[in-house]
Amino acid sequence: MDIAMIGLGRMGANMAERLHRGGHRVIGVDPGEAARNAAAARGFEVSASLADALAKLPVPRVVWLMVPAGEVVDQTLAALAPHLSEGDVVIDGGNSYYKDSVRRSAQLLQDDITYLDCGTSGGVWGLQEGYSLMIGGDKATVERIGDIFRTLAPAADRGWSHVGPSGAGHYCKMIHNGIEYGMMQAYAEGFALMQRKAEFNLDLAEVARTWQHGSVVRSWLLDLSVEALEKNPQLDGIAPYVPDSGEGRWTVAEAIDLDVSAPVITLSLLERLRSREGNSYSDRMLSALRNQFGGHQMKTD
Amino acid sequence: MDIAMIGLGRMGANMAERLHRGGHRVIGVDPGEAARNAAAARGFEVSASLADALAKLPVPRVVWLMVPAGEVVDQTLAALAPHLSEGDVVIDGGNSYYKDSVRRSAQLLQDDITYLDCGTSGGVWGLQEGYSLMIGGDKATVERIGDIFRTLAPAADRGWSHVGPSGAGHYCKMIHNGIEYGMMQAYAEGFALMQRKAEFNLDLAEVARTWQHGSVVRSWLLDLSVEALEKNPQLDGIAPYVPDSGEGRWTVAEAIDLDVSAPVITLSLLERLRSREGNSYSDRMLSALRNQFGGHQMKTD
Amino acid sequence: MDIAMIGLGRMGANMAERLHRGGHRVIGVDPGEAARNAAAARGFEVSASLADALAKLPVPRVVWLMVPAGEVVDQTLAALAPHLSEGDVVIDGGNSYYKDSVRRSAQLLQDDITYLDCGTSGGVWGLQEGYSLMIGGDKATVERIGDIFRTLAPAADRGWSHVGPSGAGHYCKMIHNGIEYGMMQAYAEGFALMQRKAEFNLDLAEVARTWQHGSVVRSWLLDLSVEALEKNPQLDGIAPYVPDSGEGRWTVAEAIDLDVSAPVITLSLLERLRSREGNSYSDRMLSALRNQFGGHQMKTD
Amino acid sequence: MDIAMIGLGRMGANMAERLHRGGHRVIGVDPGEAARNAAAARGFEVSASLADALAKLPVPRVVWLMVPAGEVVDQTLAALAPHLSEGDVVIDGGNSYYKDSVRRSAQLLQDDITYLDCGTSGGVWGLQEGYSLMIGGDKATVERIGDIFRTLAPAADRGWSHVGPSGAGHYCKMIHNGIEYGMMQAYAEGFALMQRKAEFNLDLAEVARTWQHGSVVRSWLLDLSVEALEKNPQLDGIAPYVPDSGEGRWTVAEAIDLDVSAPVITLSLLERLRSREGNSYSDRMLSALRNQFGGHQMKTD
Repeated sequence: MDIAMIGLGRMGANMAERLHRGGHRVIGVDPGEAARNAAAARGFEVSASLADALAKLPVPRVVWLMVPAGEVVDQTLAALAPHLSEGDVVIDGGNSYYKDSVRRSAQLLQDDITYLDCGTSGGVWGLQEGYSLMIGGDKATVERIGDIFRTLAPAADRGWSHVGPSGAGHYCKMIHNGIEYGMMQAYAEGFALMQRKAEFNLDLAEVARTWQHGSVVRSWLLDLSVEALEKNPQLDGIAPYVPDSGEGRWTVAEAIDLDVSAPVITLSLLERLRSREGNSYSDRMLSALRNQFGGHQMKTD
Repeated sequence: MDIAMIGLGRMGANMAERLHRGGHRVIGVDPGEAARNAAAARGFEVSASLADALAKLPVPRVVWLMVPAGEVVDQTLAALAPHLSEGDVVIDGGNSYYKDSVRRSAQLLQDDITYLDCGTSGGVWGLQEGYSLMIGGDKATVERIGDIFRTLAPAADRGWSHVGPSGAGHYCKMIHNGIEYGMMQAYAEGFALMQRKAEFNLDLAEVARTWQHGSVVRSWLLDLSVEALEKNPQLDGIAPYVPDSGEGRWTVAEAIDLDVSAPVITLSLLERLRSREGNSYSDRMLSALRNQFGGHQMKTD
Repeated sequence: MDIAMIGLGRMGANMAERLHRGGHRVIGVDPGEAARNAAAARGFEVSASLADALAKLPVPRVVWLMVPAGEVVDQTLAALAPHLSEGDVVIDGGNSYYKDSVRRSAQLLQDDITYLDCGTSGGVWGLQEGYSLMIGGDKATVERIGDIFRTLAPAADRGWSHVGPSGAGHYCKMIHNGIEYGMMQAYAEGFALMQRKAEFNLDLAEVARTWQHGSVVRSWLLDLSVEALEKNPQLDGIAPYVPDSGEGRWTVAEAIDLDVSAPVITLSLLERLRSREGNSYSDRMLSALRNQFGGHQMKTD
Repeated sequence: MDIAMIGLGRMGANMAERLHRGGHRVIGVDPGEAARNAAAARGFEVSASLADALAKLPVPRVVWLMVPAGEVVDQTLAALAPHLSEGDVVIDGGNSYYKDSVRRSAQLLQDDITYLDCGTSGGVWGLQEGYSLMIGGDKATVERIGDIFRTLAPAADRGWSHVGPSGAGHYCKMIHNGIEYGMMQAYAEGFALMQRKAEFNLDLAEVARTWQHGSVVRSWLLDLSVEALEKNPQLDGIAPYVPDSGEGRWTVAEAIDLDVSAPVITLSLLERLRSREGNSYSDRMLSALRNQFGGHQMKTD
């Protein structure tokens, strides 16, 4: 098929390459010259102009957005609008908030343009291993352009599916990331408990390798843990500072909105916030209170 | 090699069979006639008597315990004692508390008997797929009887290892189960959030299948989720009642003992306790307090 | 002073009465006849009509809203608008979201009407004991009508203050309620642990009474606990079902928005959600997974 | 009455003084010369020798221990043993583990010595305000020496009580401290959320003062918060480092042992552990994993 890939960052460039390798014609679009040059070196067409890229594609077109969630998506859609025509398909493969996707889909439908929200998991490994794709929106459209998903996914019939109406794809991706936070935190805590147990002098990479085969906790994240721990068993030089992106926050907000208690996903997010608090006011308050009632000495800076 | 397998419950019988299939001579020992008969039908020798079984094995012997953690292990060791001789190896493959294993190892060493603690993961799937084995104790002994581990593990060179001195094996298994609690809870919360989102009418098994390929959250537990959800998507008829075994509790206690905050593993345990509280006193107290200060109507039984 | 009290529910009627007792002229407004009749019996004027009530008050007027947070506030403001004039003061004493108060204040300012957001704590006890009032908005206005706050507060100079610009009053009340959730949960857990300790056969009301004097945990909530436990030590007949109102949710959302980890306030909210989940899907999922990997029997409904 | 106070640390010296002021004869015992001199200056007798102090008291004697929990209590009891005689009463007013108190009580009973466990709350304020005392052990003995408790408590008839058999006093104190952790954490989080909200420029001491009168969250800990915040509103120079003593840990262990989920008390303890972790391994592991799957840049030390 013919596809415009809008956004040639790490994810977009990789996905474009996988599509290109899979026999699709891909035109990569990015305002950044460096990104375009790097992409061109991978063998597919690039363009600095949305108008130019869309003009080159046969209608109805398939336009894949791989840009940062939030305003950039709306800006890109606004910039695309004059160049789209009836029957075109726009796919948002980024980590957009599912309610935004519901809204955008309804808006584009007014011009007979189909909007699909495609939750995409796989990170930097997706290029080689394929991506897991959760797709929301019009089912017939998903089937019509199924060749794109078959190429991006790990196998033609696995790792992708139409999960529901508009928004459902990004909803599933949001939950996916919430689960991811929880799993990562569970592993991190477990490895920390083994690392701290000095008397056993455990080789954490070796323990993790043992778990890769036959254990209940085997997983892809465990495989990645093995690689991280083999390279740097004491995790030296890495700061205890963990960013978070929107999906974790949205999952926590959604859980509360649905009246569902999701304590582990919630705490996983809070631990990340905590990792970035420099000089916790609440801890200092606790110290001050202990001093007030018990005369306990406070540790000073 | 020649091995006595003490305890022919679900785990013991499967492990005995895997060893038997792997070419080892196994004598299964269990006081229960039904367990022995079921085991005999699997093709390996059985015996009701420890003395009898040990008498049949060439010295130095290898005796594998697969009995419930706690007192039963001590009782079994006491019963074994008169029949063991210098150079014998006793392996505890159950979920014993690692401090007990340290103690038992030291005790048996006084009679020149080597005690190995072997954390065993894999559940009912281990028979076919092999077990993940984390072994603590004398390294030379582990190497000497390595054929046993090679047979039990998923592959001769993978899924088993000597992780450290006595206690280290069960320590790693304890942490493994703590991580398992956290991962399970993360998935459970995520699936609950998808199930509750009625407007998307998600097919949870289908979403889980999509995640099995290429996603960050792919894992063996996810594979099992697919099977559970395919069989019973609404989990009808299952009570929201989750047992826990000792490892989760020990992990939480260990974390506190090591001054390491492990909130996700801890909360995962607490959620299981909560699942079994019939008529929470603390919730009723909250309701009573709201009534006291705000005049809020209390819901009654 | 002369004040219209809009909304004669439990809180509004009590506050109107405290103002009336304090020598202010109060006109209570409520669409419900029963509420008006009950209020009239307390000795102050009532009216079914905003227009009528406002017409009776000398300008510039003071109008106090004690209506449910959310749309009702906006509807009430819309209904008030035609009857307000330059210099009037509208006070929202309910539990509005602080961002709504910021918006409403800005809107009313366009017509030279001053909007104050007044976080009000005290519940049904406020009538006798006075209310704690956290006031946001124009400071000079707060001082000008200070007699109102002096009457409502526990003492003329204590229990009320201007805490900051518009929104600050409701912000402080939101945080106040977040703290309240955490404190209530802490007590509830503690009492549950004493109740469960059958071997000591503790008289919880007696323990609580002991704590009321000299202990670190003495508080007004503890005083209320004593009353609740004296009346019903086993909390019989009360359902373990705990509602929550918006402030807890907003506090959690605000914490995440500010990148501040507030685990105890957060978990306190989640426990309330949990108390209302009938048949937890996540617990059932855990049970199903345990069955999958370990062959553990599931408890059925 | 005549009492030996063993241990003249901050708590012991204050309690001895309150008893002395209340008309009791007190002999303070401490091995440290500085502690004895400071105590002597408060007007009551002191001694360096247990034997000497006990010899001066009329039998049956009352001996109050105010020494660090754990081994010191057992050592002190061993040192006391030769000097005690039938009918003497030993009171442990420290923060001992309740199971130790059960054991010690049974042991002393063999020599007809009555052991009381007295949970003592009040901190450095107890000297002036009186202590809250939860007493476990023989009820008739508690009544017989009730004058001691009447003097120590805030009022003759309030703030002290016999709560149950041996162990019950320290059990209630343990739970008391668990609740204290939860309440402190709730306040600390709330104040942190107000401190972080720069746009409102809140005066936290002023907000806290407002809450002291009429609000649902008024408490003694809030009173102490006011003092702490008035002295040092930004808590400058205080390290975010919060010690914990045994009671919090025991409460968490007890909750798990009783199969009661107490998430807020538990998380309050974990936050203290977290405050003292210098360079969290689990946070670094999370950062390493994010880098592995997403190519996300890790922050370095």
